[in-house]
Parts: sequence; structure tokens; C-alpha cells
Amino acid sequence: MAHEAAIEALRALLGDRLATSDSHRELHAQNEAYFARALPDAVAYPETTEEVSRILAICHEARCPVTPFAAASSLEGQHLPIAGGVSLDMGRMTRVLAVNAEDLNCTVQPGLTREALNTELRATGLFFPIDPGANASIGGMAATRASGTMAVRYGTMREAVLALEVVMADGTVIRTGSQARKSATGYDLTHLIVGSEGTLGVITEVTLRLYGQPEAISAATCRFESVEDAVNCVILTIQSGLPMARIELVDEMMVRGFNLSGDAGLPEKPHLFLEFHGTPAGVAEQAATFAEIAEDFGATGFAKADRPEDRSWLWALRHGAHYANSALEPGKRTLATDVCVPISKLAEAVTAAQRKSRDLGLTCTIVGHVGDGNFHCGVRVDPEDADELKKVKGFVNELNDLALSLGGTVSGEHGIGIGKQAYMTREHGAALGYMRALKQAYDPRGILNPGKLLPPEVA
Amino acid sequence: MAHEAAIEALRALLGDRLATSDSHRELHAQNEAYFARALPDAVAYPETTEEVSRILAICHEARCPVTPFAAASSLEGQHLPIAGGVSLDMGRMTRVLAVNAEDLNCTVQPGLTREALNTELRATGLFFPIDPGANASIGGMAATRASGTMAVRYGTMREAVLALEVVMADGTVIRTGSQARKSATGYDLTHLIVGSEGTLGVITEVTLRLYGQPEAISAATCRFESVEDAVNCVILTIQSGLPMARIELVDEMMVRGFNLSGDAGLPEKPHLFLEFHGTPAGVAEQAATFAEIAEDFGATGFAKADRPEDRSWLWALRHGAHYANSALEPGKRTLATDVCVPISKLAEAVTAAQRKSRDLGLTCTIVGHVGDGNFHCGVRVDPEDADELKKVKGFVNELNDLALSLGGTVSGEHGIGIGKQAYMTREHGAALGYMRALKQAYDPRGILNPGKLLPPEVA
Repeated sequence: MAHEAAIEALRALLGDRLATSDSHRELHAQNEAYFARALPDAVAYPETTEEVSRILAICHEARCPVTPFAAASSLEGQHLPIAGGVSLDMGRMTRVLAVNAEDLNCTVQPGLTREALNTELRATGLFFPIDPGANASIGGMAATRASGTMAVRYGTMREAVLALEVVMADGTVIRTGSQARKSATGYDLTHLIVGSEGTLGVITEVTLRLYGQPEAISAATCRFESVEDAVNCVILTIQSGLPMARIELVDEMMVRGFNLSGDAGLPEKPHLFLEFHGTPAGVAEQAATFAEIAEDFGATGFAKADRPEDRSWLWALRHGAHYANSALEPGKRTLATDVCVPISKLAEAVTAAQRKSRDLGLTCTIVGHVGDGNFHCGVRVDPEDADELKKVKGFVNELNDLALSLGGTVSGEHGIGIGKQAYMTREHGAALGYMRALKQAYDPRGILNPGKLLPPEVA
Repeated sequence: MAHEAAIEALRALLGDRLATSDSHRELHAQNEAYFARALPDAVAYPETTEEVSRILAICHEARCPVTPFAAASSLEGQHLPIAGGVSLDMGRMTRVLAVNAEDLNCTVQPGLTREALNTELRATGLFFPIDPGANASIGGMAATRASGTMAVRYGTMREAVLALEVVMADGTVIRTGSQARKSATGYDLTHLIVGSEGTLGVITEVTLRLYGQPEAISAATCRFESVEDAVNCVILTIQSGLPMARIELVDEMMVRGFNLSGDAGLPEKPHLFLEFHGTPAGVAEQAATFAEIAEDFGATGFAKADRPEDRSWLWALRHGAHYANSALEPGKRTLATDVCVPISKLAEAVTAAQRKSRDLGLTCTIVGHVGDGNFHCGVRVDPEDADELKKVKGFVNELNDLALSLGGTVSGEHGIGIGKQAYMTREHGAALGYMRALKQAYDPRGILNPGKLLPPEVA
């Protein structure tokens, strides 16, 4: 067994909360995407920040890799312990430490899931709006700079995280940010850690900005003759300044997936799924303004989903997109792209993706947080079929290059992990060297989630 | 003359755009606050990124300090070349490089002022909402993580900056961010540079998020019997989720300053200055909801300022607060505090500041971006009067400690510069070590704005 000395010291610290059995290791080796499994040497289950600090001090001393793990819902393999060592399972650190309703914020432990947080918040009249498809952990969402369907209105984890407690590589515990809504005191370590995918430190507490539940909520769907019409409607809606709470594209192939997997009963046309938040009068005004814009792009079949149960059904359907893909070519995996482009380039990017995937004969759904310029192709692939994998990766490569050429980014919200490292140089150029310098300064022994985010240096 | 070799090389590069005359040096030695003047050895006036790169390469080689300079409106002495060397005057880099109206963004050079930008934007129907009191430069605002009266609605420079071009210590030019509205690709260097006060790199291009000019704008003022009533009204307004565009506190002493300096003719009571943005119906609804809340706190004297010229007058008055202080005790300087606290603690902090300053017999105005929990005491002080300076600094110290004990920060928007370094350890604890590590990694020779932001290390 590798890293024996570290594992022995960790067992002395954690007792039976340090597991080396195959079953524990296997549970931490899986992923939602197309990556090969990767077994850790051991799994640690800390219960306190103090324990995380001691674990890191031990692993730092012994140069043993540590890969944080929680809901395992990441789509680029961020939680996979590809260098072995310790899988640091935050699943026992799930407490809500404080809800400061008067200040519209809360502080939680990283293993708490977003759904569990919103359940906790229900009685307070507040809610937490960031909602990636999966029921992800708050710590993982911060580490990945996640967003979701409401980012168009409420921002991403970048805007949501006010403050962090972080355990650094050698076990030092730091606090970043404050309870105040803004600050100009020094380097923004909070936003350096957000999106760092566990490679600069391990998040042990997250202070999140919350929002009052809107007085009125109105959801709706409508459909278009082409994704181009749908996306052009989105572009004009955003440019007009309409404060959409949600504006989601679902293409005809994705509708088929919903119909097959969830009996959605929707016509197989491109749809927009919408939500408006505000006062009753404000919501009605927004919906009317949107309808005027949409009709100019040939939208039909407007259907309201105003009852809470109808809204829940609609958004559960949308959040299940990654899983609904399975219905289209059972037995394969889904490779999810994540480009984000300037809104004016969105129609060009989406139509190119649809055309290219069709030309290649791929089974490809398109869904998107289109108000942000962000969309996902869900490409079905058999990772064992080298030809197919190559074709799919070629498609992804072309799409990512297109996004960069349009002034966009290869990832709006899924992050880099294992899967997108090849694009880091193309996207960041000389800035990548300054990312490496940061990693070197904060984790000189390279124990924190090694092999993620930064591409290997070419010798 | 110090740094002769560097200055000689810079003269060869820049010709007469490298100045060493007393008049040029004096112009770059002044500040708006209470700091002693600080003369650079030379002033460089670059016109391109390429020139900034070469200047830094020369200064890096020669270990010559470089302090970026533009509008010189910073309140913590950020632009003062306290270690000598080169004052890097960005005042010739003021171009608007691109306005992408369809994507609601623009790219500008750092020397452009916020007012000049908004003048440029007028015909596009867009505006840039970040408005510190002074007509600051966009580069300086990014470097200081500035905000202003509309941050409560539109965020601060943290939210406004989408992408940067930055020249690093050795002259390497990097680009951070993209034109997309969000990204999850690696460490967030954009937000690391924003707020770094020229100590990690020199900003040479800024891509900013813009907003459509609201369909309807309504401004108003009202007054209260005490700042406590005014602030409690603000707290409830924010907690109720009302999307205020501006909600500014002006205490009775500040009103006196406005009356003395600008003939404002306002009753000498605490006021709120307000603005609502939205559709005509939405603005009317917001104003009515606000009035209901305000009346519960005894607000009287509601006065609308709906005509553009009335609104301009109102906000020019507010933006002139720092200068209007001069009318209260002519001949002195103003020391401006900048604490920001959680909104629930705002009444406690503001009333404590007012009480303490009165107890000490200080001439102190209070204005604040109270929707963010941020307020400024403008304390008049004669920097030559050691006793008075000590008393004022004691007051500031107590207020800053109070803000930290309430979960806040010592600076919401002015930054650290020279004036607030003493609080960095108290506010950041062990995290300060990781800020120092960053500075060491990015500027190992310490040439970038030395003596700012990070306190000296205790031997």
C-alpha cells in the first residue's frame, strides 16, 4: 500500500473514520461523466475543521495526495483521486452553522447539499438560488465556481460566496472575507479559492448570500421552430434588460430525452423554460414583455406553470437533463460540454453545435443557461469505443475552439478538472504561468488534488 | 538622483514622456487625504501596453519602484510614490477600445475616467453604474475595488470587471477573464488583480459590464429625526428585498456642509437620498413601498427629483461630500473612514460613530452607501496638530475595531493603501500570510507600488 506512514498517522487520528476497505475506496472512485474510475488509498471522514487541519498537516508532512470529496456530482472528475492518496470525504460536515436572516446570509459546512440548505431555509422566507443540475454540495459548488438556472438573475457561486474558512496545504486554517456585503481590504482570497477545485486549499466553511423568497413567482414554457429562433429571442430579452429569473433553452433532442425518460409529453421542438420573480404586478409586466418579444420570433404554445407543484415538476425535469440523456442511447455515458460565449454570439455557437453534431451523426442534446450565454451539449459516448470517443472529442474540441474565437470560455460552470486541461493554455496564454506560480506558492509539495485544473508542464 | 540607470533607460524609451522636472514630480506627490506628499524620482507617461511592458521590464531589471497614477483621487494614498522611483502616469491611456452594446460590455484603457466613459456611452443607451465620489479613473477604480452609490443595485468593481489586461512585474503581459459573463476555468486572476492596488501588476485594459439605461428613473429625498431612524428604515428596506438603485444616508452635519459649501438649502436633519430604476409602473410601485416603510420610521419632507436636472443636482451634491467637508472647518484636511458592516449591525455602528465623534468634540460628517452597510465619517483634522491627529486616529481605530467585532470590514471601498495597513492583521489573521506569499510570487523584487496594502513584516 502506498502512503503507509500517512495512513497510519491518519488512523491514529480518526480511528474507524479512516477507511481502507475496497468498498469505501470504490465508492470514492466513481464519477458522473466518462472518466475511468480512480481508487484512493484511503478515505478519511473528518467531522471538524480541526480534524481537516490535522489531516492536511499529516499528508503535507508525508507528501500524500489529498482530494476533497462530497456529493461526487462534478462533471470533470474534480473529486477523483487520480494520484491515489486520501479521498477527503466531507460528508460528515453538513451542519448549517448560522442563518443570519436579517443580513440575508448563512454559514454552512461544505458537505451540506444545496437542496438540504434550501429545506433548512424554508421557514425563514429566504432561499439560496444557485442550482446546478445535481444536488451538489455547497463546498463542491464553491470549489467549482458552479452556477445553474438562476445565475442570470442572482449570479454564480462567485457572487454568492461572501466568506470562507479554508484549510491550506500544511494545515493552516484561514478565514477569508467577512459578513459585510463588500470589502476593499487586500487581495481577494475568497474569490481565489472559489473555483480552485481543491487545488489551493480545502473549504471547511462557506458564508453564502441569501435572497428573500420572491413575493410572486411565475413560470412558463413556450416553443419555437428552431433553436436559432429560440436563442435570438433570448438575446433580445437579455439586451432589453428584462430581469429574467430563469431562461433556459431545451432543444428538440433534449425534449425527446425528457419524453422518453420522464414521460414529459412535450412537443419535440426547441423550448424555452422561463421564470419571473418580483411583485405580482412586476411579474405580470415581465411576462407580458417577454411574450411580446417571443412572439416576434414565432414562439407558440405558451404554457404557464404557476402552481408550486407545476413549477417543481418543470425545474425537476430541467435539473434531470444529465440523467435524461441516458434514455437516448442506453448504456453509453454523457460527455457534457460547457462553453459560455458573449450573448451576441450565442445563436452562432448554438447553431454551429447543433449542425456539427448532426453532421457527425452524434446523439447530442442541447440545454443551456442561455441568459448567461452558457449551454451544454450532452453527447452520448461509449468510452470503450475508441473511434467514437475520438469523434466526440473532436466535436468538443471544435466547439471549445469556436467559443474561444468568439471571445468566450470553454467552461461556464463545470470547471476544468481532468477533462478540460488541454484548453487552459489556449484560453489563458501567459496568464497560465501566473496560475502555476500561485499553486507553487500555496501548495509547494503538490498534495492538494494533484493532476487537476492545471495541465502538466511540458518538459 | 536615485535609480539613475533605470531613468536613463526609460528616457531612451520614452523621450520627453519621461519627466524629472520638479513640476511634474510635484504634481504626482499630492493626495486628497491627509498624507504627506511623496515625490517620485521621475514620471513616465506611457501611451501603449507595449510601453508599459517595457517600462516594467526596465524597472524590474533595475529594481526601481513603480507606482501607478491616474486621477489621484484615492483616499488612502494608493498613488503616492512613497518609495520614490517612477510614478507611472496612465493619463495618456484614456481610449474607449470597444463598446459591445449587444453584449452589454466595453473595453477601455485605465486612464479613462468614469464620467468620460458615461459621456461616451450616452448615445448607446447603456451606462456604467459604479460611481465613487470623485471622477476617478477606471484603472484606479479596478485597482482599489471601488464602488459608490449604486453598488446596492449593480455591485462594485468586483462585479463590474469582466476581464483585464495586466502587465506583471517583469513586463509580461497577461489577459484575464473573457467576454463571457461567467467562467469556471482556473484561478480567478481577474478578481485577484481587482483590489490589489497596483501591487501585483499594472492594469492596461479593463473590460466592464454595462447596463441598459433604465426605462424610468425616480429620485427622492426624505428626512428623519435621527440617524438611527434613518438607518433602521434602510435596514428594513433592504431586508424587504426592495431593489433600490440608490439609498444614501446623509447625516445632519453633512447637510450643514452641503448648505455651507453648495447652498443646498436642506433642513439640517439626517436625510436619505434615494433612487429607483425600472419600468414606469415598477418605479412607482417601489417608491410607494419605500414610502410606507419610511413613514413607519417617522420620515417627513418627501421631495421628488424626477427631472434629469434635479437628479443631477442631487447626486452632484452627494458626490461632492468629500469636498463639502472643507466648508465645515476650513484649512483642515478630511480623514475619511470606510467601515462596512452586516446590514443588521448598521444602526449600532452609525450611532456609535456619531456618539463617539461628538464625545471627542470632533467635526465629523457621516454619509453612507447604507444599503451595503458601508458608511464614511469625514473627520476634519489638521495633520500638523499632533494632538488632534492622535485623537482622530484614536476615533478611527475604535470605529474600525467596532466594525471588525460586528463581523464587518475596515474598508468597503477605499482600500488599504498607506492608511489602513495597521488593520490588515486584525482583519485577516493567518490569511495575511497567504497575501504576502502572493506578493512574493508575483513581484519577488518588490517593485510594484512598494509600501502599500501589506503592512511591513515585524522582524
